[in-house]
Amino acid sequence: MRQRNVKNCDEILASSDKYLRDIKSLDKSKYQNICLEIGIGKGAFIAECANRHPENLYIGIELNKGVVSLATKKIARYEEEIGKKLDNLKVLDFNALELKELFGNHEVDKIYLNFSDPWPKKKHEKRRLTSDAFLEVYKDILKEGSVIEFKTDNRSLFEYSLKNMNKNKMSFEYLTLNLHADIDAGKLDDEEPNIMTEYEAKFMVNGPIYKLIAKFN
Amino acid sequence: MRQRNVKNCDEILASSDKYLRDIKSLDKSKYQNICLEIGIGKGAFIAECANRHPENLYIGIELNKGVVSLATKKIARYEEEIGKKLDNLKVLDFNALELKELFGNHEVDKIYLNFSDPWPKKKHEKRRLTSDAFLEVYKDILKEGSVIEFKTDNRSLFEYSLKNMNKNKMSFEYLTLNLHADIDAGKLDDEEPNIMTEYEAKFMVNGPIYKLIAKFN
Repeated sequence: MRQRNVKNCDEILASSDKYLRDIKSLDKSKYQNICLEIGIGKGAFIAECANRHPENLYIGIELNKGVVSLATKKIARYEEEIGKKLDNLKVLDFNALELKELFGNHEVDKIYLNFSDPWPKKKHEKRRLTSDAFLEVYKDILKEGSVIEFKTDNRSLFEYSLKNMNKNKMSFEYLTLNLHADIDAGKLDDEEPNIMTEYEAKFMVNGPIYKLIAKFN
Repeated sequence: MRQRNVKNCDEILASSDKYLRDIKSLDKSKYQNICLEIGIGKGAFIAECANRHPENLYIGIELNKGVVSLATKKIARYEEEIGKKLDNLKVLDFNALELKELFGNHEVDKIYLNFSDPWPKKKHEKRRLTSDAFLEVYKDILKEGSVIEFKTDNRSLFEYSLKNMNKNKMSFEYLTLNLHADIDAGKLDDEEPNIMTEYEAKFMVNGPIYKLIAKFN
C-alpha cells in the first residue's frame, strides 16, 4: 500500500488498543507462535489470522503511520463484527529493516508478505521487501526452519523474489503460479485455508495470484 | 512430444545425414560449444540454432525413434529452404539418463529443454526432464558455469522445475513468467533472440510461456 497521509492519525493511534506502544509490554511467552505481517494494508489478513489462531501472537508492521491508523479502525470494526477482542493482535509503524530492535535472534515463527509494493524501478530495488537487506533481517529473526509466506499478483515482483530468494539460498516449500486455480481444483497443498487480503479479493479477477512459501536453510 | 510410431523410421534414419550413428565419428574439437536439446519435437528449434551458430555443434536427443525420424525429414526440408547443409547438427534417439555414455565430465556447454512432456501424475515424476536423476546427469556433463535453458507453457511443470532446480542448488540466471510479454515490452534480458519451437508458435496464444535459465553452482 502506498503512502497515505491521515490527518488525525496520532489521535486514532492514541485511542487504539491495537497499537503497539512498547514491545516490552507484551508477554510473548503466553503464545505458541510469534507471527509477523510486514505491510499490513487495511489489516484484514492479520485480523483474520488472529481470530483463527488465538494461540498465536500476530504483529503487523507497516512503514506508514497513516496506514497503520486506518488499519486500527478497520480492525476495531472487524472485532465488532465477530464480537470478540483480538488481544493477540498488535500493529506498529516501523521500518522492517530494523526488526532486530524488536525481536531477538531466531525468535519469530512466521513472516507474511502480502501484496507488497513492487517498486518496479531498478533504482528502488532495495525498497522491495524481498531484497537482500530485508531477507538478511528475516533470516536473523526467524527461527530455524520457519517460513516466509509471500503472495503477490505482481509478476515482476514475483520473478524478482524467486530469483532473490534462490540467490539467498532459501528453499522453496510451496510454489504456485496461480493460487486460485489451485484452490478451485482442490490442489492446495498448504495446510491452512487461504486467507484473502482486501487487495487479493479485488484483484484476483485480473490475473493470477502467485504464492511462495520459502525458508532459510 | 508424445510417443509416435513411424512405420518406416529405420529407413528414414538410414538415409539421413543428420542421424548420429557414432558419436566418435564427430570431431567435437572443431566447434566452440557443444549444445544439446533434450526432447527435440519436430526439430525446428535446434535447426534454427544450428543455422544461426555454425561455430557450435548441436546434438538433439529424443527418446522416441519415430519422433527423431520425422525431425530428420523436417530438418532436411529446412535445409532446402535456407539453401544450406547444417553439418553442425545431429539428432539421436537416446535416453537422456544415459548421456554420460556420450559425453565426458563437464564437456557440454549448454542444454535446452523446450516444452518437455509434463508427466503430470505424481507417479511419473521421475520421467520429467527436470527431476533429480536428470538434473544429476546434466550436472555431470555440463561445464562449470554452463546453463540449462528451459521453456514451457505448462504451469505445473514450471512450478515443479523451479522447486526442483532450487532444491538441487541451481541458481536462477534468468526467469520470466511471461516470455512473450517481456519480448513485446522489449524487456528480454537474454542476449539471444527467442527461437520459437513449433509448439510455442502454436500455443503461445493460449497462455504465458515460462522460461528459466539456471546453472549449477
